[in-house]
Amino acid sequence: MKAVYPGSFDPATNGHLDIVTRAARVFDTVLVTVARNPAKTPLFTMDERMAMLQVATAGLPNIEVHSFDGLLIEFVQAHGAQVIVKGLRAMSDFENEFQMALMNKKLEPTVETMFMMTANAHSYLSSSVVKELARLGGCVTGLVPDVVEEQLKTRFAEEYGAGKKG
Amino acid sequence: MKAVYPGSFDPATNGHLDIVTRAARVFDTVLVTVARNPAKTPLFTMDERMAMLQVATAGLPNIEVHSFDGLLIEFVQAHGAQVIVKGLRAMSDFENEFQMALMNKKLEPTVETMFMMTANAHSYLSSSVVKELARLGGCVTGLVPDVVEEQLKTRFAEEYGAGKKG
Amino acid sequence: MKAVYPGSFDPATNGHLDIVTRAARVFDTVLVTVARNPAKTPLFTMDERMAMLQVATAGLPNIEVHSFDGLLIEFVQAHGAQVIVKGLRAMSDFENEFQMALMNKKLEPTVETMFMMTANAHSYLSSSVVKELARLGGCVTGLVPDVVEEQLKTRFAEEYGAGKKG
Amino acid sequence: MKAVYPGSFDPATNGHLDIVTRAARVFDTVLVTVARNPAKTPLFTMDERMAMLQVATAGLPNIEVHSFDGLLIEFVQAHGAQVIVKGLRAMSDFENEFQMALMNKKLEPTVETMFMMTANAHSYLSSSVVKELARLGGCVTGLVPDVVEEQLKTRFAEEYGAGKKG
Amino acid sequence: MKAVYPGSFDPATNGHLDIVTRAARVFDTVLVTVARNPAKTPLFTMDERMAMLQVATAGLPNIEVHSFDGLLIEFVQAHGAQVIVKGLRAMSDFENEFQMALMNKKLEPTVETMFMMTANAHSYLSSSVVKELARLGGCVTGLVPDVVEEQLKTRFAEEYGAGKKG
Amino acid sequence: MKAVYPGSFDPATNGHLDIVTRAARVFDTVLVTVARNPAKTPLFTMDERMAMLQVATAGLPNIEVHSFDGLLIEFVQAHGAQVIVKGLRAMSDFENEFQMALMNKKLEPTVETMFMMTANAHSYLSSSVVKELARLGGCVTGLVPDVVEEQLKTRFAEEYGAGKKG
Repeated sequence: MKAVYPGSFDPATNGHLDIVTRAARVFDTVLVTVARNPAKTPLFTMDERMAMLQVATAGLPNIEVHSFDGLLIEFVQAHGAQVIVKGLRAMSDFENEFQMALMNKKLEPTVETMFMMTANAHSYLSSSVVKELARLGGCVTGLVPDVVEEQLKTRFAEEYGAGKKG
Repeated sequence: MKAVYPGSFDPATNGHLDIVTRAARVFDTVLVTVARNPAKTPLFTMDERMAMLQVATAGLPNIEVHSFDGLLIEFVQAHGAQVIVKGLRAMSDFENEFQMALMNKKLEPTVETMFMMTANAHSYLSSSVVKELARLGGCVTGLVPDVVEEQLKTRFAEEYGAGKKG
Repeated sequence: MKAVYPGSFDPATNGHLDIVTRAARVFDTVLVTVARNPAKTPLFTMDERMAMLQVATAGLPNIEVHSFDGLLIEFVQAHGAQVIVKGLRAMSDFENEFQMALMNKKLEPTVETMFMMTANAHSYLSSSVVKELARLGGCVTGLVPDVVEEQLKTRFAEEYGAGKKG
Repeated sequence: MKAVYPGSFDPATNGHLDIVTRAARVFDTVLVTVARNPAKTPLFTMDERMAMLQVATAGLPNIEVHSFDGLLIEFVQAHGAQVIVKGLRAMSDFENEFQMALMNKKLEPTVETMFMMTANAHSYLSSSVVKELARLGGCVTGLVPDVVEEQLKTRFAEEYGAGKKG
Repeated sequence: MKAVYPGSFDPATNGHLDIVTRAARVFDTVLVTVARNPAKTPLFTMDERMAMLQVATAGLPNIEVHSFDGLLIEFVQAHGAQVIVKGLRAMSDFENEFQMALMNKKLEPTVETMFMMTANAHSYLSSSVVKELARLGGCVTGLVPDVVEEQLKTRFAEEYGAGKKG
Repeated sequence: MKAVYPGSFDPATNGHLDIVTRAARVFDTVLVTVARNPAKTPLFTMDERMAMLQVATAGLPNIEVHSFDGLLIEFVQAHGAQVIVKGLRAMSDFENEFQMALMNKKLEPTVETMFMMTANAHSYLSSSVVKELARLGGCVTGLVPDVVEEQLKTRFAEEYGAGKKG
């Protein structure tokens, strides 16, 4: 069974990594699929986001990192996947995720969206919160993979230098 | 990959059947597992609930109907399953399901709970609503499998006879 | 246009009265319809609940107080009503009300359920809270119509006498 | 009884049409009222949105299509309407709609906001989802009126040509 | 500033203890107040619940354990407290707690209810879940104070003996 | 006990003032702290927002108005505060506030976030709604402090003149 785990991953957090790791135990292959999402201006480029994910998932043999730039369901079909995996944090993404899942069900009834619960330690953790925290010089250790923490530090170097306590 | 789909199924609705059918496409075997749940007085006995599920899932080769009477996670372990499947209707079961999933994660971290979205046509459909409707003589066609409709009619025969319009 | 406003009204609160009053401005006739609901043990009998509603709505000429004891939608049809009116308090009744509205839509597609927002001053006000408050000797003035306040005092006379401060 | 059904309608979906159709059975006249909403950049101009609504509601004799560009409650008063009709999809619009309804109640206590439940088949359907789907070349048949589907195809002609499978 | 932390505590969980401990850092005195709540049949008697709380909070000098059997707000007034402290788990208790807080505000406007967020590790943890888990022979270590774990084991000795794996 | 009450206050509403007033009765000092929040374009400058707050809280001796431009938790630490106070309107801010509270707990475990329930009359009242209402010429009396009402009138003078009815 092949599954797709789509997202913006701008950047990937430990909440995302937790879902990837657990999905990799349930499905034969998990395609971590980075959406271009032209509507938002990302902090990291598509290449940077994919590179960070590749480093962070290096220890998981049945994970592949992909990008896509169109209808998710067409990506799923093109790669012969049967399942879309999404993480649900406590309520926050619920309605939006259901809307997308129902739309994908309408477009392709044979593909199932399956939701996994974000681990308790990662609920309320989001890429936005992590970026805001890093921008203001806060410590993101434990919230993101090491490779992401480094990239965030580099990206916000000036603010981080000014904001940190020593 | 073996999955367990637990519930009271008192009685099974078409919402349950939809989840079973879709889960049977994702997993090698799905154990539909009827909880004894001594806290509630069921309308149908354990044997009746299992018998109706067996009839309703007869067309699905990789479905087994079981009962359990203890900790769900011990049933899952005893049968060598790796996944618990639950259906989420729009919001209504969310918090309760998350609480159970987190508890099961604590008891056995290697077992994943995966949520499937109840099909739109079945959202807000529940065993309680179906029983209440049948009790008052309303028509449950399309809401439950045929075998369940028959059993409900038999069970509520007097009220049904009195309540129906002709 | 004739509308039905169903409920247990055990007892009616000022939140219920607010909805009745506003519905009476929108529809030609509003049938306030008291459900027998055998599943719960009410504090007040059907006759008492209807009598209190009749007193409390005496000033509204286009209100009728009824009882029903079966499928709501059959009552609606039997009385030639086209609309079911329900009050929504902030979120609390949302899912349950939607479930019932969808079920009624399935049973009779020509009848519409319309929701009115409970006035801010009455949100979080419920028959249960009022009964609990009265049972413990708290003051319910402003929460229920005068006739209900009197009945609650009579009903909880002993506790009220013991609990009140003087 | 005259009712106003306000929205951006950028573009109208079958969810909107369902609410209009059902409201037209309850009220003598329904004014479908397109908000200019300068805060957002619409995909379609005011004239285009109104024209599509006029085509889509042509079969409903007691519907009028209007525009407004200010306080909704002033439009309601100016047209002698007593009711504002809004569609509620499962939870998603709940809080925002309540906020607006309470504000309108404060501005004009004699006007009632009445909520109708979006039909199950249209829950989670929104103008945004439809636009996103059309932009990516997905099929919107069944989600929007025919006239809107044509306009979306024209508008996204290049992307649509590139994205569709054949 | 004196605060009251009310609850059924049947039995106290580590989620309750976390709130007590944190409230004890904010307020001069915290009265942990066990409600008799005659509506529910408790697993532990009032005396047992209070005794367990006294053991579990023994290390906190500014905590007192009390019982009450009436209107909470009268207990608060009688003890000269100004604040009621409640723990909010993610969403689950939200509406109910707000309803009670608004009612208490009506009864005594000078008393404030302040909500603290249950620590992430304890969200979705409740007395009911703990009792159900213990009843079925599951391990509650880490979910409740040691004294409660012992009492639960004693109480469910037969089931626990039968259910545990060895 | 010193508490910080942070927000954008663009502009302060009577909902904010209600929370400040009630927090001032619970804590020795309340620092009303205006966030610069560079992500949004405010209607009023930092100086204007602080000046309005100073006028509106002039009658409360233990209130100080501050600004901050970084991590809130660093402001809290720098001023020796132990508590962050936030107002919760019915559900609407819940998830977002919890996310921030958990993040602040991670950054500094000794600081507690305490939530107060917005008074019923102010639920669903927000700075955005007030600004939208003022922009369209609606009356904001009773929704904001007098000083804010004057400033809103001045700011939206042309629209207000054009939009008001007389």
